[in-house]
Amino acid sequence: MSALKKEAGGDVLMAEMLALGRAAKAASAKLALAPREKKDMALKAMAAEIRVQAPKILSANEKDMAAAKARGLSAALLDRLLLDGKRIEGMAKGLEEVAQLPDPVGRSLGAWDRPNGLKIERVAVPLGVIGIIYESRPNVTADAAGLCLKSGNAAILRGGSESAHSAAAILDCLQEGLCAVGLPKAAVQRLPTTDRAAVGIMLGLTEYIDLIIPRGGKGLIERVAAESRIPVLKHLDGICHTYVDRAADPEMARRIVLNAKMRRTGICGATETLLIDRPALAFAKPILDDLIKAGCEVRGDAEIQALDRRVTAATDLDWDTEYLDAIISVRVVDGVTEAMQHIARHSSHHTEAIITADTTTAARFLNEVDSGIVIWNSSTQFADGGEFGMGAEIGISTGKLHARGPVGAEQLTSYKYVVRGDGQVRP
Amino acid sequence: MSALKKEAGGDVLMAEMLALGRAAKAASAKLALAPREKKDMALKAMAAEIRVQAPKILSANEKDMAAAKARGLSAALLDRLLLDGKRIEGMAKGLEEVAQLPDPVGRSLGAWDRPNGLKIERVAVPLGVIGIIYESRPNVTADAAGLCLKSGNAAILRGGSESAHSAAAILDCLQEGLCAVGLPKAAVQRLPTTDRAAVGIMLGLTEYIDLIIPRGGKGLIERVAAESRIPVLKHLDGICHTYVDRAADPEMARRIVLNAKMRRTGICGATETLLIDRPALAFAKPILDDLIKAGCEVRGDAEIQALDRRVTAATDLDWDTEYLDAIISVRVVDGVTEAMQHIARHSSHHTEAIITADTTTAARFLNEVDSGIVIWNSSTQFADGGEFGMGAEIGISTGKLHARGPVGAEQLTSYKYVVRGDGQVRP
Repeated sequence: MSALKKEAGGDVLMAEMLALGRAAKAASAKLALAPREKKDMALKAMAAEIRVQAPKILSANEKDMAAAKARGLSAALLDRLLLDGKRIEGMAKGLEEVAQLPDPVGRSLGAWDRPNGLKIERVAVPLGVIGIIYESRPNVTADAAGLCLKSGNAAILRGGSESAHSAAAILDCLQEGLCAVGLPKAAVQRLPTTDRAAVGIMLGLTEYIDLIIPRGGKGLIERVAAESRIPVLKHLDGICHTYVDRAADPEMARRIVLNAKMRRTGICGATETLLIDRPALAFAKPILDDLIKAGCEVRGDAEIQALDRRVTAATDLDWDTEYLDAIISVRVVDGVTEAMQHIARHSSHHTEAIITADTTTAARFLNEVDSGIVIWNSSTQFADGGEFGMGAEIGISTGKLHARGPVGAEQLTSYKYVVRGDGQVRP
Repeated sequence: MSALKKEAGGDVLMAEMLALGRAAKAASAKLALAPREKKDMALKAMAAEIRVQAPKILSANEKDMAAAKARGLSAALLDRLLLDGKRIEGMAKGLEEVAQLPDPVGRSLGAWDRPNGLKIERVAVPLGVIGIIYESRPNVTADAAGLCLKSGNAAILRGGSESAHSAAAILDCLQEGLCAVGLPKAAVQRLPTTDRAAVGIMLGLTEYIDLIIPRGGKGLIERVAAESRIPVLKHLDGICHTYVDRAADPEMARRIVLNAKMRRTGICGATETLLIDRPALAFAKPILDDLIKAGCEVRGDAEIQALDRRVTAATDLDWDTEYLDAIISVRVVDGVTEAMQHIARHSSHHTEAIITADTTTAARFLNEVDSGIVIWNSSTQFADGGEFGMGAEIGISTGKLHARGPVGAEQLTSYKYVVRGDGQVRP
């Protein structure tokens, strides 16, 4: 009996999910043809609605917070879940900023004529329907939906169960914004339940969903990538390296390393491992001092430990760890070649930086390191769509297919070829 | 006992496959940094080797042909499998043509400066390792390997078991070409066995293979897409449409429709369904006459049947069928809107064409039809990388992720961001 009931429940959920997928697909066809003005008006209407409905969002968030506290969630998780006036205003502002971005749809990506007179043009078009699976931060609801709308894509959102009330209240504002300008409500939808079974069904809706973007911890992303039948844009961990070359300006190295590690330790572009060229040990002591003074735990190999007694011993595990915390692993290498070997073995191909005044060494590093972002004489913390001038981003892709590095509105488009002739037939 | 042996056999195969994957990955790191001259010299050396070893390739192919005949393969399959002097020369020429193409690696895809002085550049890089799974045409061995090499990618090839001898002989030439210029042999490899189990393992080698490209029938592609844990660039069927609008030039419509259907019926860009605007029925009779005279079977709706007694009745199935044969389905529609509705429902999003002298109608069709290639006043048979001026192609992608439409050397690249600073830290 209970198995039967469960099965019936599964059928109901499947039917709901199929209806949701169909509605998203139909909405995406309308969004794809919506003029820029209409999309931007919707984004602004969404922002206005979020401001008007702030009290409702806050009280929904209180419910989520109370439940999370009762469940004994960690302080870090509670902080991610929390919304306040400032964060709500941040969501509204974010949507307005996305409205200001150029329209990524309809861009001409190239045009050329063929000897037979055919005129060929490559034009950017939306991807279609994007499924976004995220964890506890409720503001992702607005951020992700905004970028999807700007790029002409319908969005299906699946937030964590702990943020369900907050996400529902935010979604309500987004859908109000869509309706205000006559765009379909189904352009932004949430799964009907936070039940894990719904995610399983979602990841199999190949007919209705074009791309899955998981945002969150490594566990979530690996689970989604393993299970999904739909292409996945992975935003995996950032084990980022900064290499201080023998030809580095010592003062510049100090400034950059401190920033790369300690500006914000919880972002994926934070440096986790520092590689120091052996001759650069001569000016490495102040770098370690700065880090330790700023509250960073330094784990080093024997030579680094010899430099400073406060340095603890790094183990093999350290070279493969994304701390997302005030911890750094430090190793001595013999020049750029060994630095690049270390990076090839341990990097997550996110972002790596070299500090050197030697242009030849820098050129080798920038050319040979196989990461989404390679940086010369600056901080890995610049690995960010906003800092790149791309406006908002949905994350940093560590894969090579479709989009690599920061994923903004442009990266959420595909293209089509438009061919104009005057009667040509193929010989 | 037999189960144990099988398991041991499985372990051996797994070990072989892992070794192959590792070797490909190592080779790809070298290829990624190989200068254009070296890659092009290798392509030319491969072509020369194919010409020198033509007798060996032909005798290997005779073995495959004899086995295929003994197994009673169809005439069409035998023709695909067959190599002769002309086809071998075609392979060699193809490799030389790929050598002439511009290097897709290292292209600057954009560069801009940030207000803080950071200089950002997007540079094309290879994808890494590409797995290609194909059916009986042995020439794909050379064509696919050539494009992969040009784009700096290592290739792992899995051809059909029926072409195993031919493919081995061709691979031998390709690897000779690589060795001749000092590039690693493992830049092009074949699976150690044509056993299906090897494909299963291949599709799970996420650590070593970056992209899977299946080439062949719908069955193969769907199987690969369902099973693969690695991203797949799908080249699914081409249910291509040509729409003859009321404002079409009647003579142009005749010429284009005949070419779009009958120039070559077995390619994915061949038109399978003809949509005729009701007012265009007035000049549709000669279009049907031309098709029938050229040996095409015409299946139509009631109005089309009324035009010509030789037209048989189309069933619902016809609108969703890729004939790849001298058969066409023909339907009357009410204007471009109904034509686009039919296309949205039945197209495989490959290529669709409109014939009209009305620029407004054409613009609507080109903008609103969601296919990889949309064509105005020309033949769908132009859906081809070569005809687009892209040089060789590995197929036509019907997906929207990464590459859409013809997939040439450029589409086999990713990119990275190179950031040049002079000491900037992030505030």
